[in-house]
Amino acid sequence: MPLWNIWHSPNTLNDKEKELIASQITAMYTSAGLPAFYVNVFFHPLPPSDLYIGGKPRSNFLRAMVQHIALRFEDRKDPVELQKRFLSATDRILAPICKKYGLDWEYHILETPRELWKINGLVPPPFGSSEEKEWFTTNKTSRKSEKL
Amino acid sequence: MPLWNIWHSPNTLNDKEKELIASQITAMYTSAGLPAFYVNVFFHPLPPSDLYIGGKPRSNFLRAMVQHIALRFEDRKDPVELQKRFLSATDRILAPICKKYGLDWEYHILETPRELWKINGLVPPPFGSSEEKEWFTTNKTSRKSEKL
Amino acid sequence: MPLWNIWHSPNTLNDKEKELIASQITAMYTSAGLPAFYVNVFFHPLPPSDLYIGGKPRSNFLRAMVQHIALRFEDRKDPVELQKRFLSATDRILAPICKKYGLDWEYHILETPRELWKINGLVPPPFGSSEEKEWFTTNKTSRKSEKL
Repeated sequence: MPLWNIWHSPNTLNDKEKELIASQITAMYTSAGLPAFYVNVFFHPLPPSDLYIGGKPRSNFLRAMVQHIALRFEDRKDPVELQKRFLSATDRILAPICKKYGLDWEYHILETPRELWKINGLVPPPFGSSEEKEWFTTNKTSRKSEKL
Repeated sequence: MPLWNIWHSPNTLNDKEKELIASQITAMYTSAGLPAFYVNVFFHPLPPSDLYIGGKPRSNFLRAMVQHIALRFEDRKDPVELQKRFLSATDRILAPICKKYGLDWEYHILETPRELWKINGLVPPPFGSSEEKEWFTTNKTSRKSEKL
Repeated sequence: MPLWNIWHSPNTLNDKEKELIASQITAMYTSAGLPAFYVNVFFHPLPPSDLYIGGKPRSNFLRAMVQHIALRFEDRKDPVELQKRFLSATDRILAPICKKYGLDWEYHILETPRELWKINGLVPPPFGSSEEKEWFTTNKTSRKSEKL
């Protein structure tokens, strides 16, 4: 969590740009206090013969499907304002690279239950807890955390 | 939105057939008033060594995961009747091609929040609005729309 | 249903191990009475240049996204206890193979509406029904079932 699946036309993002996007996405979540390693960003190149928009093959498209688990808007104060800022931040990451390659881009977010989520066999510690802060600092799971 | 991810056994759908399926799927949504370019259909070939049904590798399967955002059944009048008709229309598209190749097919739909969805950095106009009609006619996003 | 999408670093699971995982996952559901063929397990190898954790490319990661349709925790007695046992059973399947290859692993589950799900053009019979028992025994859909 969060899990970003990004389908994109091939030959549009190079490895350096993918890593940059992934690190910018990660920064959105670490600034909210989430451990960096929670952030999964997966890229999937799709040739025009497998990518259809409006029924037509396309060679210049980027589509992200974002899943939020640990930190859901509905659990926060001011969810509407927070959503708006999050979507704007997402566009600030995607727009430059999409404009460079002439891609249209689209994304949507879904929010799934935190209680149905585990990492390395562990239930992640509660948001804002001292155990989570430890995971944030060490940037990895800690079995000790679960035993607390 | 809508986003169709279709995993299928390789060497079962050719490019022409994929485009036909994508255009038939698109027509289901444009007939409800949605702009054609809202409809994303992605195909993902999966070899038997990556596709297991009931624990066994399969070479003749098609699985669609459909995500609805802009137009959710629950927001419409008569959602139950509408769902039934939509599922039947989906089967009328998938059944002929699946029978041609001897594929079993399965699909499910999930519905996600409209307020967590953007295209080209824009919040899409409300369903049924005059701005949406403009997007339908031009078949592309319009920055003007957002400023209204 | 259920649909398991598993993204994993390439050269970490061989075909035999994938089939073993798929059959162990299937057994979790057949023991609850679901037909084996309901269980879809798809593997997707992702090279480090397409798989970023915390903004860094990774070559030793496994991520599962699980979708439950036919049998949702919320529809069962004791959903919390059931969830806990299910997550533990999942880890018992994934941990040995992930430890063998030095993979970190993560998964989450989402639950989607049963009424938006069909197989081979058929509405699957209700959970626990005699028709479902027939599908379980024959391990395939039966058009007769729908006509009942």
